[in-house]
Formats: sequence, C-alpha cells, structure tokens
Amino acid sequence: MKHVNVGLIGFGTVGSGLAEVLLAQQERLQQRSGLFIRLAKVADISTKELPAQFADTALVNDAAELINDPDIDIIVELIGGIQPAKTFVMEAIAAGKHVVTANKALLSQEGREIFAAAAAKGVEVGFEASVGGGIPVIKGLKEGLVANNILSIMGILNGTANYILTRMTDEGIAFADVLKDAQDLGFAEADPTYDVEGIDTAHKLAILMTMAYGMNITHNEIVTEGISGIEPIDIDFAREFGCRIKLLAISRNHGDHVEARVHPTMVPESHLLASISGAYNAVHFNGDMVGNVLFYGQGAGKMPTGSAVAADVMDISRDIAAGSVGRVPSLSYLPENIRDRDVTPLDQLACPYYFRITALDQPGVLAAVATVLSRHEISVESVIQKGREEGEPVAIVMQTHTAAESAVASALAEIDALEAITAPTVRIRILEEE
Amino acid sequence: MKHVNVGLIGFGTVGSGLAEVLLAQQERLQQRSGLFIRLAKVADISTKELPAQFADTALVNDAAELINDPDIDIIVELIGGIQPAKTFVMEAIAAGKHVVTANKALLSQEGREIFAAAAAKGVEVGFEASVGGGIPVIKGLKEGLVANNILSIMGILNGTANYILTRMTDEGIAFADVLKDAQDLGFAEADPTYDVEGIDTAHKLAILMTMAYGMNITHNEIVTEGISGIEPIDIDFAREFGCRIKLLAISRNHGDHVEARVHPTMVPESHLLASISGAYNAVHFNGDMVGNVLFYGQGAGKMPTGSAVAADVMDISRDIAAGSVGRVPSLSYLPENIRDRDVTPLDQLACPYYFRITALDQPGVLAAVATVLSRHEISVESVIQKGREEGEPVAIVMQTHTAAESAVASALAEIDALEAITAPTVRIRILEEE
Repeated sequence: MKHVNVGLIGFGTVGSGLAEVLLAQQERLQQRSGLFIRLAKVADISTKELPAQFADTALVNDAAELINDPDIDIIVELIGGIQPAKTFVMEAIAAGKHVVTANKALLSQEGREIFAAAAAKGVEVGFEASVGGGIPVIKGLKEGLVANNILSIMGILNGTANYILTRMTDEGIAFADVLKDAQDLGFAEADPTYDVEGIDTAHKLAILMTMAYGMNITHNEIVTEGISGIEPIDIDFAREFGCRIKLLAISRNHGDHVEARVHPTMVPESHLLASISGAYNAVHFNGDMVGNVLFYGQGAGKMPTGSAVAADVMDISRDIAAGSVGRVPSLSYLPENIRDRDVTPLDQLACPYYFRITALDQPGVLAAVATVLSRHEISVESVIQKGREEGEPVAIVMQTHTAAESAVASALAEIDALEAITAPTVRIRILEEE
Repeated sequence: MKHVNVGLIGFGTVGSGLAEVLLAQQERLQQRSGLFIRLAKVADISTKELPAQFADTALVNDAAELINDPDIDIIVELIGGIQPAKTFVMEAIAAGKHVVTANKALLSQEGREIFAAAAAKGVEVGFEASVGGGIPVIKGLKEGLVANNILSIMGILNGTANYILTRMTDEGIAFADVLKDAQDLGFAEADPTYDVEGIDTAHKLAILMTMAYGMNITHNEIVTEGISGIEPIDIDFAREFGCRIKLLAISRNHGDHVEARVHPTMVPESHLLASISGAYNAVHFNGDMVGNVLFYGQGAGKMPTGSAVAADVMDISRDIAAGSVGRVPSLSYLPENIRDRDVTPLDQLACPYYFRITALDQPGVLAAVATVLSRHEISVESVIQKGREEGEPVAIVMQTHTAAESAVASALAEIDALEAITAPTVRIRILEEE
C-alpha cells in the first residue's frame, strides 16, 4: 500500500484535531483510497510530548525539520496568523511540498504570492478549512459548481458572531453581556475584534470571491462593519419587520465589477440564512445554472476543522498516488485566467435600509425627517414610532426601499443634526430578496 | 487544447439542459481546466432536429452510434427508467466509455451490476445529478466528508412532495387539490406515484447509503410511506406541537446494522429541515468528526440538473486529461471494501409518534385508549382533544415518547377495534432530536 507522509506544523486545537481525525479515520481512508496517510512528524514549539496514541509520530521543535525532510509529501500549516506561517508555507513550497492550511488571514492577505509560488513549483495548496470550518464548501464551489457563473455569495462565516447574535435574539441580552459569557465559555477569544468586527468574515469572503469569480482580491478591499453596535432594541424591531439580524458576507457579481461587503444585515425570516443559529456557518451561492445552493455546518472547532483539513490531505494524496498533481487548479481557475476586477466603492452600493432615529417627542419631527429623506431620494416603506414615556425620547423606526449608500450617509448626517434628534441614528442594511 | 468528446443519450428536459449548460459554460470550463468539453453527438428517438445553437453537434436516432463511436470519451445517459437505459449504460461500459447518469431508479435497483462492470473495465460512473438535482451532495459526501464515519442521513429528496406539503402547510389546502394544481403547473407528473409515495425518495436514500456507509442496498429494503394520506388537520396539529410535516428520508448507522426509512415526519421547527420550502431539496448528514452538515438547493429542473451532470462530465474529463481515471472510487469506497449490512426490520424501529384518534365523544374513551397504550408500553408525552360539536366525533391527538414500531402497530389495531373509535387512527412519526 502506498504511503503518503504528512508533516504538521502547529499542535494547537486544530492541529491536534487533525492528528486525531487522521488516526481515528486511518482505516476508513484506506478503504476509500487504498492509501495509508501517515502523520510522520509534528513541529510545535510549546508541546513537550505528543499524546500516547501518536507513538508513530515524531515531535520536533523546528518546522524546518519537516520542510527539509525528503520523505514528507504534504506540509500542513495550522499555526495561524501571518508570520511565521507565511515563511513556513513559502519554504515548504520552495522545497516542493504540497501545502494544506486553514489560515484565512494568510490566504486573504498573501494568497496571490503563495498561489503563484505553488503554481510555479507545481505543488498543490489545499485550504478547505479556511472557510466554513468543517463544511466542504471550497470543494463544492470549485468542483461541484464548476459549470456556473456565480452571481452572488452570501454567508454567515463567523461562528462567534452568529452565536452572539443568536443569544441576543433568543434571550434579549446585550452584546457585551453575551460576549463576556461567550469568552467565559471559550466560544470567543480574549480579543474578539477579528470575530465581532467582521474582519475574519471579510478574510473568508475574499477567499470565496477569488475562487467564485476567478479574481484577485484581498480583504482590505471589502467594506467591513461589525456587530458590536447592535442593540437588543434593534433585534426587537427587526423581529417586528419579520427579520433577524445576522452578520452577513455579501458579494454580487456584476461582471466587470463586483460588490463585496460584510455588515450586520436584516435577513427576512423566510430566507434560510435567517434560520442559521448558534455557532453554525452557512454559505449561500446563486449560480446562473444551478440557482440557489447552500452549504451548512460547524464553522469552527477542533474536529470539524480537522475533518476539512483531512479532506484536503486526502485529495492531495490521491493526486500524488494517481500522478495527477494540479488536476484541479487550487483557485478553481487556471492562474492565467485569474484577473483583476473593480470592487464597487462603498458610496455606489445600494440596498434597503433600517433606521432607528432617536428623537424628542414633539410635533414636526417626523415631518422634518421625512423631508430630509425625500430630498435625498430615499423612499420609506414603513414607519413604526415607539416610546412615548413622559419626557423620554421616542424611537422612530423605518424601513426604506432601496437607497444609495451615499444618499443615506448624507441624509443621516442631516437628520442627526436636527435639534430634536438626541442620539446618532442607527442604520442597518436589509437583505434584498433575489 | 485537449478535447473531451461527450455523447448524450436523451434530449428531453434534462438532456437539453445539459446541452445548454455545456454550451453556455464552455469558455468557463476551459478557463478552469484547460479542456474543451465538446458535445459531439446526441441520440434521441423523438427529436427531429437540434436547436440552431448546437450546430457542432450531430443528432442521431440510435444510441449505438454513440456507444460505438471511438472518438467519444463519455456517454451521458439521461433517458431515465430501467430499460433501455440499463442496456445503454452496460454497453457503454463494455465499450470502455465513462458514463454519467442522473438515473436514480436505475442506480438504486441495478447499481451493483453497473458499478461492478465499470470497476472491471476501469471506467468511471458519475451520478451527481441522481440525488438532490443541482446540489453537489454526492461529491460533498464522497470527498468533502471522506474522513468521517457517517452516523446519520436525513433528507428532503423529492421536490414535488415537498412542494405539495409546503402548500398544504402555508395555504391549508387538501393534498388532492394541491396535487392537481401542481400537475396543471407542470411541477408534478401525470402519474405522481413515485414522487408522492416516497419511492423516488427511497431510490435516492439507497444511493446515499451505499456511498455513506460503503454497503450494498437497494431501495426495496427501505421502509417507504408516502404523503397521500396526510390531511390538513394533521398539519394544523403539527403546528400546535411546534412541528412541520416533511417527507423525510432517514437512515441511522448502527455499525453492524442500519436503519433506512422514508415516511412523512413531524420535524421540530427549530430543525433546519423544517425550513426547507417548496421544490427545494436538502440533505443533512451527521459525521463522527464533522458533526452536522447540510446541503441545500434545487432538487430538480432542467438547468440545475444540467449543472450537476456537467460537473460529473468535468470531473471525468479532468481524470482523462490527467491520466488519473479511477482516482476516486465511484461509490466512495473501493469495491472490495463495500459490504453487506443488515437493514433494521420495520418492527424493530422506534421513534416518538403522533396519533390522531377519531372517537365518539363519550366518557371513558380516553381512559380506554390510554389503557391500551400503557399495556403496550407506549408512554404519552402530551394530549390535545379537539372537536365537541354535537353528535360529531372528536379528535384525540397525542405525542408519545419513543415507542417501538411493533408496539405501536399492535396498540393501534386494538384502539381502532374499540367501539367508540369511528375512523382508523392516523399515525405520523416524529423526528428525534439528535
């Protein structure tokens, strides 16, 4: 039986998960492929000893020992972050190793250089686990939907943010309280910025867009807003409008230019994405041939992520065994067919909006607000006025029809400058039904 | 550029859909693979002429002209049914052609012979479109979840049945009326038996089980009940219990034996499968490593199915070009590792139940029913009694805890024999939360 030797850099949560998956599924992988996938070496700077079940695996301190080992076929990078991960990946490619990584920050920022190096060297780069954790969405997009022009991508791509919003929705708790709870339970990092401010989601959207559209894009080009400003009151109003608030990654393909944004979004309850609860992730594509397709599963976690990394290892192992390395281009398009496209600037986006205006309860406020909106050609679909406690400001809540982002920004600046307005207006974008 | 020549047998809805997909996506497929996928010949007995855009494709009357054409690499069978589809597929394999089919009836009944012949001849058989229409669920299961022992499969696998149930639920219309409407609109066949009686769903479950568990199974081994007996009143009671009624395919993997059944099922609204509406399909897997994963999309239709068939054609074309035919076994396990397993007999199944008992409104009925249930060790979770119009029978509706199928059958026979019972008791299985 042919052996494929794997070298694993990083024995943290995901790394040890991969090791456990490969061990638990060793026989199954043989039954499916006729290949023996051997975890030959692990490099980790803080692990003193591998658990007893990994007796056949060597532990070293220095990643170079894996990269320079001629017996190792595939290097798996699971340390995360940009450096030293990038150095290890580039060195592994230079040494002719195939690479598997779950590192979305690395790929969304440095992907162009990494994939170019891999193509030049004739090695594969697998990254199924970088988006959607255990969900086989990269393979589904790259191969399953190969005969489609992807017209849109919508995703719940960060489990921590979705967990927080779900608990805020179900229990009416404030953001900060759920976050603290999530941190205590280990669902959220001590520094939750990447998760709750949408940056991690933008990393993943950049990867999906690269593959879906065959384009170069980094996460810096994606309009990104997080959920830390969402209040329970907005979740309640969303419910009155038949919506739930989700942190969505949204991209639309307009051919010569593409939209790309990450922000809290009111999703109609009839849309499947509104039903994605807790730490789960989901990715929704619209393809010109297939129509709507959605992939759902655990977006993070030791074993789900290990499952996705193992699938990449298996895929590359099959290519090694069949002599078909490069059979499917890593980024779904051949490198020479990946091109630059314009990303729609923020001020040219348009969508329906939710506004929550906080105003003194006095005659003429609604008229003043409506006048400003009308001057900016923002048309209102429905209004709810709440509050009316003696001396307390009222909430004027409205849904607009599709409005230009630039018009909304100007109108809200004017509205917030009105004398009767006592707090900055909250605005949340509403998902347009397709 | 390397050419791959495709011969298509059957130019009906799906066949012409494939032709349109291959034409529309020809350039995209080249950009992704460097291959030119050419629809060389179409065989169809009732088409006189191909539409003008297929000027480069020959139309013939006899499938043998494709099967015996040495230039053709892949035969796509899209005529459906057992014969002559089986003959064409077996002849194509014998002639050394790769085969792609969307024919779930054929595969679930004759798959063993077909896959054995293909393995012996060293050709591939692609069948992504046989389950879930355009959803890339076969590839997801076979490759994306390769490192998992699949513990359960649950699916909404028939769009017609789900469309009917959705409209019954949303509009309160009776089964027969929705069916007639669906037939008028072209959503349901003139003979809807396969769709509404669960047979088509059983075909698809057999295919999924074969691949998920690496076992031999035909659809005849699957307990199958349809939706034609579902009444609006049961849908209303389901709603009171926080459930929706779906035609579910359910399989659980117990290692040495497996459960396999297709029947109307009350699905708790909190479960994502309850949110799958209209003609959409969804497949939910639980894998021992990845946890819950769901794939969703259009379960039928010309272009979605064409998208899935085209993905298979592309996959095989890549293997032809890379010299890696057989890289992934057609059934996900190597043929020598596919084994027989016992399918749990119906009377050994157990799940929670919904009963709707129709009884005269007289003292002692509930006590009599409860006594029978208790004697059969069926424990009741909740009871609702409805009706109470003068002289009219009442509905006694109950949810049980998990009960043995054999106990339920015996108990209901006894209950229905009680003098006060005026109509056969309706029983619907309830999905157990995992």
